[in-house]
Amino acid sequence: MPQKIIIDTDPGQDDAVAILMALASPELDVLGIVTVGGNVPLPRTTLNARRIRELAGRADVPIHAGCSRPLSRPLVTAEHVHGPTGLDGPHFPDPVLPVGDTHGVDWLVATLKAAAPGSVTVCILGPMTNLAMALVKEPSVAGAIDRVVAMGGAYFEVGNITPAAEFNIYVDPEAAHVVLTSGIPVTLAPLDLTHKILVTKERFGKILAVGNAQSHAVVEMLKFSEQFDLNKYGWGAAPIHDPCVIAHLLRPELFTGRHINVEIETASELTRGMTVADWWRVTKRAPNCLFLKDADVDGFFDLLVDRLGAYSR
Amino acid sequence: MPQKIIIDTDPGQDDAVAILMALASPELDVLGIVTVGGNVPLPRTTLNARRIRELAGRADVPIHAGCSRPLSRPLVTAEHVHGPTGLDGPHFPDPVLPVGDTHGVDWLVATLKAAAPGSVTVCILGPMTNLAMALVKEPSVAGAIDRVVAMGGAYFEVGNITPAAEFNIYVDPEAAHVVLTSGIPVTLAPLDLTHKILVTKERFGKILAVGNAQSHAVVEMLKFSEQFDLNKYGWGAAPIHDPCVIAHLLRPELFTGRHINVEIETASELTRGMTVADWWRVTKRAPNCLFLKDADVDGFFDLLVDRLGAYSR
Amino acid sequence: MPQKIIIDTDPGQDDAVAILMALASPELDVLGIVTVGGNVPLPRTTLNARRIRELAGRADVPIHAGCSRPLSRPLVTAEHVHGPTGLDGPHFPDPVLPVGDTHGVDWLVATLKAAAPGSVTVCILGPMTNLAMALVKEPSVAGAIDRVVAMGGAYFEVGNITPAAEFNIYVDPEAAHVVLTSGIPVTLAPLDLTHKILVTKERFGKILAVGNAQSHAVVEMLKFSEQFDLNKYGWGAAPIHDPCVIAHLLRPELFTGRHINVEIETASELTRGMTVADWWRVTKRAPNCLFLKDADVDGFFDLLVDRLGAYSR
Amino acid sequence: MPQKIIIDTDPGQDDAVAILMALASPELDVLGIVTVGGNVPLPRTTLNARRIRELAGRADVPIHAGCSRPLSRPLVTAEHVHGPTGLDGPHFPDPVLPVGDTHGVDWLVATLKAAAPGSVTVCILGPMTNLAMALVKEPSVAGAIDRVVAMGGAYFEVGNITPAAEFNIYVDPEAAHVVLTSGIPVTLAPLDLTHKILVTKERFGKILAVGNAQSHAVVEMLKFSEQFDLNKYGWGAAPIHDPCVIAHLLRPELFTGRHINVEIETASELTRGMTVADWWRVTKRAPNCLFLKDADVDGFFDLLVDRLGAYSR
Repeated sequence: MPQKIIIDTDPGQDDAVAILMALASPELDVLGIVTVGGNVPLPRTTLNARRIRELAGRADVPIHAGCSRPLSRPLVTAEHVHGPTGLDGPHFPDPVLPVGDTHGVDWLVATLKAAAPGSVTVCILGPMTNLAMALVKEPSVAGAIDRVVAMGGAYFEVGNITPAAEFNIYVDPEAAHVVLTSGIPVTLAPLDLTHKILVTKERFGKILAVGNAQSHAVVEMLKFSEQFDLNKYGWGAAPIHDPCVIAHLLRPELFTGRHINVEIETASELTRGMTVADWWRVTKRAPNCLFLKDADVDGFFDLLVDRLGAYSR
Repeated sequence: MPQKIIIDTDPGQDDAVAILMALASPELDVLGIVTVGGNVPLPRTTLNARRIRELAGRADVPIHAGCSRPLSRPLVTAEHVHGPTGLDGPHFPDPVLPVGDTHGVDWLVATLKAAAPGSVTVCILGPMTNLAMALVKEPSVAGAIDRVVAMGGAYFEVGNITPAAEFNIYVDPEAAHVVLTSGIPVTLAPLDLTHKILVTKERFGKILAVGNAQSHAVVEMLKFSEQFDLNKYGWGAAPIHDPCVIAHLLRPELFTGRHINVEIETASELTRGMTVADWWRVTKRAPNCLFLKDADVDGFFDLLVDRLGAYSR
Repeated sequence: MPQKIIIDTDPGQDDAVAILMALASPELDVLGIVTVGGNVPLPRTTLNARRIRELAGRADVPIHAGCSRPLSRPLVTAEHVHGPTGLDGPHFPDPVLPVGDTHGVDWLVATLKAAAPGSVTVCILGPMTNLAMALVKEPSVAGAIDRVVAMGGAYFEVGNITPAAEFNIYVDPEAAHVVLTSGIPVTLAPLDLTHKILVTKERFGKILAVGNAQSHAVVEMLKFSEQFDLNKYGWGAAPIHDPCVIAHLLRPELFTGRHINVEIETASELTRGMTVADWWRVTKRAPNCLFLKDADVDGFFDLLVDRLGAYSR
Repeated sequence: MPQKIIIDTDPGQDDAVAILMALASPELDVLGIVTVGGNVPLPRTTLNARRIRELAGRADVPIHAGCSRPLSRPLVTAEHVHGPTGLDGPHFPDPVLPVGDTHGVDWLVATLKAAAPGSVTVCILGPMTNLAMALVKEPSVAGAIDRVVAMGGAYFEVGNITPAAEFNIYVDPEAAHVVLTSGIPVTLAPLDLTHKILVTKERFGKILAVGNAQSHAVVEMLKFSEQFDLNKYGWGAAPIHDPCVIAHLLRPELFTGRHINVEIETASELTRGMTVADWWRVTKRAPNCLFLKDADVDGFFDLLVDRLGAYSR
């Protein structure tokens, strides 16, 4: 029986690749997609989610627009990485399928309330605002969640939006705090992991070789977004982030990490949004998070290529 | 035409008095009551709101249960002040009218979306969680709000739950921050004001002399809750807090204050929830709040007695 | 036997009045004066201390220049209150007696090391930098200190330099933290006290009537510095601050306060330097401070007038 | 002409190795050693500095005991790493040469005031308390300092005493803040560098092969202190930290790093003492630090072996 998942996302090119990967995976039953303001403002991320749904040909998957702003701070966006649309790179036709009438948070609450205990995995590819809102509004929904798997945070890789914080957590540190103190098992795919998932020239070739519309779009999107990291880090290839979340659901054995305590810095402006990970277990704080750090990178790319190929089958 | 108001509340004896006062006032059209976890947990505050509605004989006023916890912190309650039920003092029969099906935050959003621009006043008698949640979920609802009038904060009176913070703001400082930075006009009735609204023996006599069930309940409730303040402050009479909000709607000329900047401390545990009020205008921060400080106290009690009397007419 | 005291000061008009008062009091043996950067930069406060010593005709009292900056922050000064010289108002001749060769912190350490246990009272009229430095450099000097009596902080009066902090503590909150956690008994004369010590027209008259050079200088200094408070608070008379410290040494029965816990806010920029005073004893933190709040104001002014008169005798 | 240096230190086994290295280097003129409370309390670090001076046979180098506690926090020590004496491992005879009469901070101030502008390098191997105290007490001494070279901090290696902070900076973050905002050029040897300087079995062999008392003591000390890191990190060899500072003075070309901004976290308890290093230049904060990250490790050990050998020549 496929694993029921909800995708909470702010596409963003790498969110888009993650969604395409999930929608092509028979092991996953995508109950719906919820959008959030993050990489770009909410109207853009919602439009982008609709574009990707149509590119995937999955009219059956509902999309609900969630929160346009974080719990207690003004929204910070990242057009400098993703371009003004958030999905710069390919040309997308205007989507025709509508967004759902229900607010993303309400859809999340209703879906979780209707679900069996521990039956749903929530995948978060952006700021954690929507799930935190659901947990504040209706704490009982935690019971339906098997676990949260999220792209976010950094420890040894420290930060990208500031010297101390990764973008997704920085945007809404209070939301991340709510999720990480909720008692729900959390798996984090931090920069420590994703900075190892580099799209080399050869890997771009393999994706292109899939030869369908989806793989072409993936290449065009990643070619756009990689520019920021290539310039910043001076690396020979750029990482991709969000698809690690989906890959971890599909093939957890590709990843290794530690089950440790992670606290979110919310008090200091200098280190706001830092994921203070007790990797070396120097505190007595109880573990609340599986913090991923390494992967079988070729295994990851084989999986990605395989799933993109499913769109042709 | 009566002023449309929503009451967001965590009864609490003085919340109860405020609600009784509002429901007896023809100048106010109470669209509904939303409850929040605060003085006591949400199930108690919701039960208490239903008790008061029935004491007031106002089956027409809907009650909706809102959030049971603050935006990003665990709930702190105040049974040491209000007793285990939150409404200790009088005997209340079990209420028979039900609470609404809709979550308080959703009812707030729906009611505000349906309202004309600037047509509704939101009265907050507890932590500001529900309105903050509504503003995060649906920022456009701010447009329907004429102003927020809230009991909360302290400047010269500094704090009650801690040396630096008043209870309502301390419980959910992030929510107060959201409301005070929303651009909605806010009026605060802080301890600076309410510590002057003392229920002396003579004033108790005037309330009792009203001679109806409601005035008896008011006396029994205040006799219970005053014990805490009498013991703590060593005063000869105890203050009442939340009814100032309703009195300010009815007779603003009874109150004076300053239109100043108020910031909420959210960074430091020592001063968490302090309302840093620029009373002396020593900063360049823009005013965002009418901060009340003084009142015609006899005028206030005359008004209270008059409104309690309306239940007999 | 007179009480041995050290005066640590940043004159400032009201520091000057306090010094004049101390130097005219046979009950006090002023071992020396140490200066600190505060109201104005260190070169000015040192020059001003020399002016006052000569006005008092007390060549026997050594003056040592201490720290020009706080422990871990840039210096903030208050020329907007005290004028560019820090002692604007009277004309002072250039002082002829020199400042001591030893750094103020070293003189403090040496003097305290040479003193009998618990034999010296340290009076602090400015930021607490010098004593904190002495305690960090040579913790054992605490043993020689009977108590610290300082002007600083505010609770119900909250702040003057910011909405949450009084100037002396705001300038060097880390130093205040060091002193208040040192185990040395501390008496604070906060704004709560000093804002009641108002120099009315009648009191100015009594000081003038003393008729000597010192009393004339006091009036001219206070006439200058009162302008700031008169404008800011709109009061009919302005308070004087630092002389309360000396008056408390001479006639403690003129003052009342509470023995409570006081913590210094050092973590948050918004509330930096707040003296979080547990006046109502709502925490379990141990008392570390006698926090003064009320005074026999006429008694205070009688004492001041009496001591100024001593310069003629 | 040899480079004039001052060593400020809390030995500690790796401090001891650094001191031995410096005292054997003709390129360096060690003006004196100042001790500080850190790895172990001040009486121990001072005793240990005397032991090392006698092991090096350098009666000419003065030692002065500095501060026993940080600027504004209680001292935290690390006996769990260094053993109860701080120099566990070898047997040391009781030292006979005395410590200087002058307080370390005063000696630092006097030595720097007597030095030509920009003529002295201050090497800090422990908490930065002493130099910060000197800068607060006498800001002009900054002019005599060519640069500060210090072991401390971490960025990609993040922390050792807590998940966010390296020990030396954690112990006195305010002192580090004072030094890093002083305008003096600072070079930091953080964990990012030192965790690469691993004493493998082969390298232990080379040190032992030097065959004199000093090299034997070095091996015995490092064999003791390596236990902590071997257990914690599960590495095959343990790093040494403080000698990097001396090696950088002697052969800067062995090291690479970046000239970037480093801020010290002092506001939040969770991340206290973090060195927030703008390695990727994502802020506009001005560079204030050469932050070392890589080294020619064999080159470093060749240098160490060479200098230990000098004791036999």
